[in-house]
Amino acid sequence: MAKKKYVYYFGDEKAEGAGEMKELLGGKGANLMEMTNLKLPVPPGFTISTEVCTYYYDKKRTYPRGLEKEVNAALKKVEKSMKMKFGDPKNPLLVSVRSGARASMPGMMDTVLNLGLNDETVQGLIEKTDNPRFAYDSYRRFIHMYGDVVMGMKPEDKNAADPFEEILDRKKWTHGLKNDAELTTEHLKELVQEYKDEIKRRTGKDFPEDPMEQLWGSIGSVFDSWMNERAVAYRRMYGIPQSWGTAVNVQAMVFGNMGEDSGTGVAFTRDPATGEKRFYGEFLMNAQGEDVVAGVRTPLPIEELEAIDPKVYKQLLQIRSKLERHYREMQDVEFTIQEGKLYMLQTRAGKRTGFAAIKIAVDMVEERLIKKEDALMRIEPEQLNQFLRPIFDLEQKRQVIEDGRLLAKGLNAGPGAACGRIVFHASDAVEMAKGGDPVILTRVETSPEDIKGMEASDGILTARGGMTSHAALVARQMGKICVAGCGALDINYREGKMNVNGKTLFQGDWISIDGTTGEVIEGKLDTRPSEVLQVLLDGSMKPEESDVYQKYESVMRWADEQRKLRVRTNADQPDQASNAIKFGAEGIGLCRTEHMFFGGDRITAVREMILSDTEAGRRNGIMKLLPMQREDFAGIFRAMDGFPVTIRTLDPPLHEFLPHEEKDITAMAEYMNIPVEKVKRRLESLHEFNPMLGHRGCRLGVVYPEITEMQARAILEAACEVKNEGINVLPEIMIPLVAHRNELKHQRAVVDRVAKEVMDSYDMKIDYLVGTMIELPRAALTADEIAEQAEFFSYGTNDLTQTVFGLSRDDAGNFLQHYYDHSILENDPFATVDVDGVGELMRIGTEKGRSVKRKLKVGICGEHGGDPKSVELCHRLNFDYVSCSPFRVPIARLAAGRGVIREKLAKKAEQAEKRRAAAKKSVAARKKTQTTKRAKKGTSGRKK
Amino acid sequence: MAKKKYVYYFGDEKAEGAGEMKELLGGKGANLMEMTNLKLPVPPGFTISTEVCTYYYDKKRTYPRGLEKEVNAALKKVEKSMKMKFGDPKNPLLVSVRSGARASMPGMMDTVLNLGLNDETVQGLIEKTDNPRFAYDSYRRFIHMYGDVVMGMKPEDKNAADPFEEILDRKKWTHGLKNDAELTTEHLKELVQEYKDEIKRRTGKDFPEDPMEQLWGSIGSVFDSWMNERAVAYRRMYGIPQSWGTAVNVQAMVFGNMGEDSGTGVAFTRDPATGEKRFYGEFLMNAQGEDVVAGVRTPLPIEELEAIDPKVYKQLLQIRSKLERHYREMQDVEFTIQEGKLYMLQTRAGKRTGFAAIKIAVDMVEERLIKKEDALMRIEPEQLNQFLRPIFDLEQKRQVIEDGRLLAKGLNAGPGAACGRIVFHASDAVEMAKGGDPVILTRVETSPEDIKGMEASDGILTARGGMTSHAALVARQMGKICVAGCGALDINYREGKMNVNGKTLFQGDWISIDGTTGEVIEGKLDTRPSEVLQVLLDGSMKPEESDVYQKYESVMRWADEQRKLRVRTNADQPDQASNAIKFGAEGIGLCRTEHMFFGGDRITAVREMILSDTEAGRRNGIMKLLPMQREDFAGIFRAMDGFPVTIRTLDPPLHEFLPHEEKDITAMAEYMNIPVEKVKRRLESLHEFNPMLGHRGCRLGVVYPEITEMQARAILEAACEVKNEGINVLPEIMIPLVAHRNELKHQRAVVDRVAKEVMDSYDMKIDYLVGTMIELPRAALTADEIAEQAEFFSYGTNDLTQTVFGLSRDDAGNFLQHYYDHSILENDPFATVDVDGVGELMRIGTEKGRSVKRKLKVGICGEHGGDPKSVELCHRLNFDYVSCSPFRVPIARLAAGRGVIREKLAKKAEQAEKRRAAAKKSVAARKKTQTTKRAKKGTSGRKK
Repeated sequence: MAKKKYVYYFGDEKAEGAGEMKELLGGKGANLMEMTNLKLPVPPGFTISTEVCTYYYDKKRTYPRGLEKEVNAALKKVEKSMKMKFGDPKNPLLVSVRSGARASMPGMMDTVLNLGLNDETVQGLIEKTDNPRFAYDSYRRFIHMYGDVVMGMKPEDKNAADPFEEILDRKKWTHGLKNDAELTTEHLKELVQEYKDEIKRRTGKDFPEDPMEQLWGSIGSVFDSWMNERAVAYRRMYGIPQSWGTAVNVQAMVFGNMGEDSGTGVAFTRDPATGEKRFYGEFLMNAQGEDVVAGVRTPLPIEELEAIDPKVYKQLLQIRSKLERHYREMQDVEFTIQEGKLYMLQTRAGKRTGFAAIKIAVDMVEERLIKKEDALMRIEPEQLNQFLRPIFDLEQKRQVIEDGRLLAKGLNAGPGAACGRIVFHASDAVEMAKGGDPVILTRVETSPEDIKGMEASDGILTARGGMTSHAALVARQMGKICVAGCGALDINYREGKMNVNGKTLFQGDWISIDGTTGEVIEGKLDTRPSEVLQVLLDGSMKPEESDVYQKYESVMRWADEQRKLRVRTNADQPDQASNAIKFGAEGIGLCRTEHMFFGGDRITAVREMILSDTEAGRRNGIMKLLPMQREDFAGIFRAMDGFPVTIRTLDPPLHEFLPHEEKDITAMAEYMNIPVEKVKRRLESLHEFNPMLGHRGCRLGVVYPEITEMQARAILEAACEVKNEGINVLPEIMIPLVAHRNELKHQRAVVDRVAKEVMDSYDMKIDYLVGTMIELPRAALTADEIAEQAEFFSYGTNDLTQTVFGLSRDDAGNFLQHYYDHSILENDPFATVDVDGVGELMRIGTEKGRSVKRKLKVGICGEHGGDPKSVELCHRLNFDYVSCSPFRVPIARLAAGRGVIREKLAKKAEQAEKRRAAAKKSVAARKKTQTTKRAKKGTSGRKK
Repeated sequence: MAKKKYVYYFGDEKAEGAGEMKELLGGKGANLMEMTNLKLPVPPGFTISTEVCTYYYDKKRTYPRGLEKEVNAALKKVEKSMKMKFGDPKNPLLVSVRSGARASMPGMMDTVLNLGLNDETVQGLIEKTDNPRFAYDSYRRFIHMYGDVVMGMKPEDKNAADPFEEILDRKKWTHGLKNDAELTTEHLKELVQEYKDEIKRRTGKDFPEDPMEQLWGSIGSVFDSWMNERAVAYRRMYGIPQSWGTAVNVQAMVFGNMGEDSGTGVAFTRDPATGEKRFYGEFLMNAQGEDVVAGVRTPLPIEELEAIDPKVYKQLLQIRSKLERHYREMQDVEFTIQEGKLYMLQTRAGKRTGFAAIKIAVDMVEERLIKKEDALMRIEPEQLNQFLRPIFDLEQKRQVIEDGRLLAKGLNAGPGAACGRIVFHASDAVEMAKGGDPVILTRVETSPEDIKGMEASDGILTARGGMTSHAALVARQMGKICVAGCGALDINYREGKMNVNGKTLFQGDWISIDGTTGEVIEGKLDTRPSEVLQVLLDGSMKPEESDVYQKYESVMRWADEQRKLRVRTNADQPDQASNAIKFGAEGIGLCRTEHMFFGGDRITAVREMILSDTEAGRRNGIMKLLPMQREDFAGIFRAMDGFPVTIRTLDPPLHEFLPHEEKDITAMAEYMNIPVEKVKRRLESLHEFNPMLGHRGCRLGVVYPEITEMQARAILEAACEVKNEGINVLPEIMIPLVAHRNELKHQRAVVDRVAKEVMDSYDMKIDYLVGTMIELPRAALTADEIAEQAEFFSYGTNDLTQTVFGLSRDDAGNFLQHYYDHSILENDPFATVDVDGVGELMRIGTEKGRSVKRKLKVGICGEHGGDPKSVELCHRLNFDYVSCSPFRVPIARLAAGRGVIREKLAKKAEQAEKRRAAAKKSVAARKKTQTTKRAKKGTSGRKK
């Protein structure tokens, strides 16, 4: 067997790896390889593979044997390519050390730049660049980073100041300076020493002068940062497995801060906010990369580079089109200009808003760069949310602006309209959002520590940073509304207030931000539906008036061409139902009847039923609901003309319907003319220790068949009446919480009997179905028995998740957070179906069910029905449909289409894998034949 | 295909069916066939098969085509054999119509006797027997039965009097008569008419004079009685499937009430109470069968028949030994003597006490009638309970009797000693037993309606009826202590009291009954352990002194020879553990540590732990428990020298440990020097909506690792210390409520780390295992992943049943009873493992677990571990062990042995089935060859 290779070199237009080796080399490493192979001007370097990371964590943070040797060899090649030497006092090579996981995790892990500088090599840098200020600035930046990242100087308390920042501030204050740029070489030199002293003072250790020690220290810290708190939280949010690990990229440094002919920038090959096909980016001259990303200085738009350095700008435009042709995808690139020479540092698929994702995907299909299938795979279903996100009422906004309530304008970093209370700290945002009012997280700039607060906020507003600042990137990815770089904000964290153009706003004040225009407005502003909603729902816009709608429509059409799953909706009101149809719903998958039990007269009748001692009394109470329920169902049947409507019989425990306030109890007792005590006793007798596992679902209908009877009658009578109006009615009656086939048998007998009575009395035939929820493990495990009594199954994955895990959703909050924080669970099983447990029961149940009833209709109506990953799982399990809330119907349609494409891709990959394996085998066979031939030649081969 | 046969004739020493056809013909029918074939004097008749019953219920209570014709043909044969004619006015054949299911259900279904009588045929009977009184007595009895059974005259309200009884009582009262026997022919004749009038008055229908109408009416009622409430309850209690159905047996009547040379009786081939090898029975001259069984007249012991009719007695003794040789089993026979001629009406395996079952089985092995395996299959594991049941302290009893507290003596119908409060009604017994004190159900006689009350009672005492009365039979089967036929009791139901030899006792008074001697004693009496317990536990008896112990020991030895399952016990005290070893336990399968958390100082430390805000505070609290837990474990390890001990880490939710009374809350706050409010807030924060699905099990250990750490330390330190004493220690640490492998991984890391520390500090090595409970569906479904972290699995079937069914054991009482009453569920899933749901997960989990760890140790520690059926399931699933409470260890051992035998029997049956199928196939093949040959002969065959 070949010796394992851990280190991959790239440079001089040739790399040891390639773009498809992301698993091994991480996204960044693979891309550097690919860019190098594409003959882009990439600074040379090498990548330490993710296998080393896995080894590192498996083997108590040690490295595999042979790694050191490989690193040394690769470093030699970099030295040769750059014609410099690592640690050389005259001509020192400096390197960057960066993380690079398989999936992008921007800003989550550690980076060290300018590595290789020490008291000797800094002299070499001075000599070589003739720029002592730059050299010392680089040196002090390096010590700062190294100190924070490798030597643990960063304070654990996030509110405490960074000790290096304090020294820097003191230095500026002492000398009356405002900006870092005003620091002299001497100041910087002093800072170097003061930084080192501070390290010694705080850690007891010397800053390492040996560049090799610096290198290994940084490599270890990057691997360590894979498990830091931010990275763990990020992975949980985006479902990235911990087992992937990160690669480490060591690359020759190039400098954008070597003077006015140097610079650095980031750019997108298309507009990441709108998707428009234009080169979009920002740069800063005489600056290093982190100055752009961190948003400390507000950068210039990329077009302005043409005036400053037309040669480089032209080269960039050429690279832009080369990249789009090569990757067939919008790219996000980082570049540095060092003394007039362009270096490409990174390219990757660019993050984008939902708007942009859809526009770019649809445009690229029209440009014949990609196929419809590719386009669908590039739109995360959740991004469709942005099409449905509210916008401000234009007329009201104009009025308000005339009234002088426009506070300022920033960058339109995350489209949509948000209105909420100002909050200045991420942790406060989480707390305040619990109060119910929406919040707008308002910061000078955001950092990875703020992620949880950003999640909790409706909108994000920052004073500094561009379109690629942390706030903008993360907000777009989360689909949050964001206005960034609004320089007019003067935020005073300490006093919890901000000044904006002469006005003062305090934490808790209302503010409105328009992420589509960048406007920041004082006070509350009404929001209204997006263009898509205006076209689809209120018809206030015509399809041809809205480009946004047309893109949406293309995506939906393409997804529908692909998908096999039907998409239904969960709705129990006629208006919900007709909205859902406009979103593409093909039926109702879950109509909860208990919502119809509340309200005025109804609840009184329900209570009368529950409080009665006798069947006759119960029947008397429940039958009062019959005409009302019949009307409810008739409304829904009319709205769903020709589409199936699944109606669930009563599910929640009876105590949910009873009064709990003293006065309501008394009123009820008076109404029924029974003693108050009796009502109270009944309340007590209905108390349950574990209501989730109590007397609910079909257990109610089995013990009180009159409830099921009334509901079946209401459904069938409504069906008959609506059918008489010439409307096509397809009722599906669903029995909840079945554990044993006999329960379903009992309930379906009630339904069938009532149905016959009703149809006889109307002299009509209704094609109704009877089926069941599969929401208990026993139902899935005995699905073959249950299928004999059912025409359809609908998985209730909410309850199934609770019972499979033995986990009450109401109580899990106490420890689930701890589970995420400690990597016990990676995802919230209530958000995405737990494939190994719940999914396994879905597989077993579906297979067993169809083993006795081949054409059994199978669907899902838990909240997972609107979760893209769960929808794809349902596709893989050969479900007939998913059902979700109306606003998630488009998302489910797209996910269902993507499921089909992903299946095709997996099949293709499998075939390719087979071909590869076959080819390998035939090579091996040939080799064996040769060996055999050699062997047959006699003993000559053995002599060697 | 052959035409389906529904009716099977038997008579004249030849039958159309045979003894092994129980499924088709029911137990009674098959036995009548077998007895006929054995050439016993059986009255002729025919059996309508159980398939007709199935058809009857499937097809809305109708009969298959052709049934009537077959019945008529069979009836003809009976007429021929008896030389009488059905409905003939001169020489009328009378028949009985009886149920007969596959399993015996004594008294549960309906029976009609003397069928065929009407105003005409009664004259024939008079002429033929020259006994008008007998003829009219038979006639009025027939109308009574037919009216109750077929025409619905029996009142639904069980406390209401039977209308026929009322008429009879009135008749006797009018004429000043005390016994039925004093009624004259004229009285009986009047009764016939009055009965008929009452039927007409109440039902509006005439009593049918047509014997064929009578016959079909009775057949239908017997089929209907399969679904009556009593039968359904009985089936549920004994796990008899509803789908089996009953057969109907129609048989020529013979009369035991044709005068003093006639009689009827029942007998056992051995003593059903003690198992002694002697002919044991009772008879009444000039009486019909129901007089004996109903216990209305107290019958004579069978030996006295010798004096009355020595010929018949000798014939009976011959039949007795013929039957035991043939059936190799103790038989329970019914016979009738009609005018000096013996007829055998029934033989079946006799019900017996646990004592008798074991004695008979062991004796029969010694007599070489059966093999050890057969013996084991004849002892229901639950019967062993009787060996462990208490007896009275002999000295105290003697004293009490000297003091004059012996009230009376009855029959020793159900061995053992019971002491409890008197209760006169079955329904009151159920209620009173809920109060906690034991109850003794005290009745004139019992009937099938009393079953639930009998179940709820500790003992049963009746005034009337013999050893084969309903009370005696049912009590023995239930393993209840019973004194029957205690004629001295004068019970007054109305006033709720009874007089016994001059003393008056009221409902609620204490009474003691000795079911081994028949003594009934006033007041409370101490009970003490059975002989087996005296030998095993307190050593107050030597093995050789106790025949009972020796039988027990044989059975246990034979079971141990067979079984593959190990049997462990659930125990958390050293004395429990050593008792369990004496019962044959081979280790502890579940040691609950939380029981050790209560009591004095301990609970304060636990509360301190729970109420602390910081890990340090929690650690401080919990560590106070360390020395105490260490001592607990050391005690258990010492008791279990050489046997494995499975210790479960903390399982229940923390709120179970907190104070709830105001004063305890205040005390705790003072002790910890924190505000009362804080304790209350913590109490509130620990409140859960569904505690069963809340923060408990390993979720505690994951969030508060210091708890697991303390417990692991206590276990390992105790192990080291005890091992130092030269004792063999095998600790198995069990993590509860695991849903995800990461939970177990986390907890086992804590245990392994602590174990290493402890073993290092003691400089010893302990062979400990770490494993998990499988008690959540997800654990079973992902058992392959979990097995990677576990050395053993132990199924916690209590929680698994709750989650698989979605059913809280605490709340299910509200509707489970309704489920049983309405045949939704047949058995209590918390008593016997639900094979299809929970059992399926046990299979999946075990297979998946062993797929990655072939030698994974698998056991069960839920309460099902002591349930015989569940133990057999564990055997079939290849478990390594079951664990149950100490007193159930012998039961589990026997069940485990029986599981092996049943498996062998099933294999044999399967092979026999295969051979039969192969033989059938070869016959079919031969036929086909013949057909082909015929075909080859040319067209000659076709001419026909």
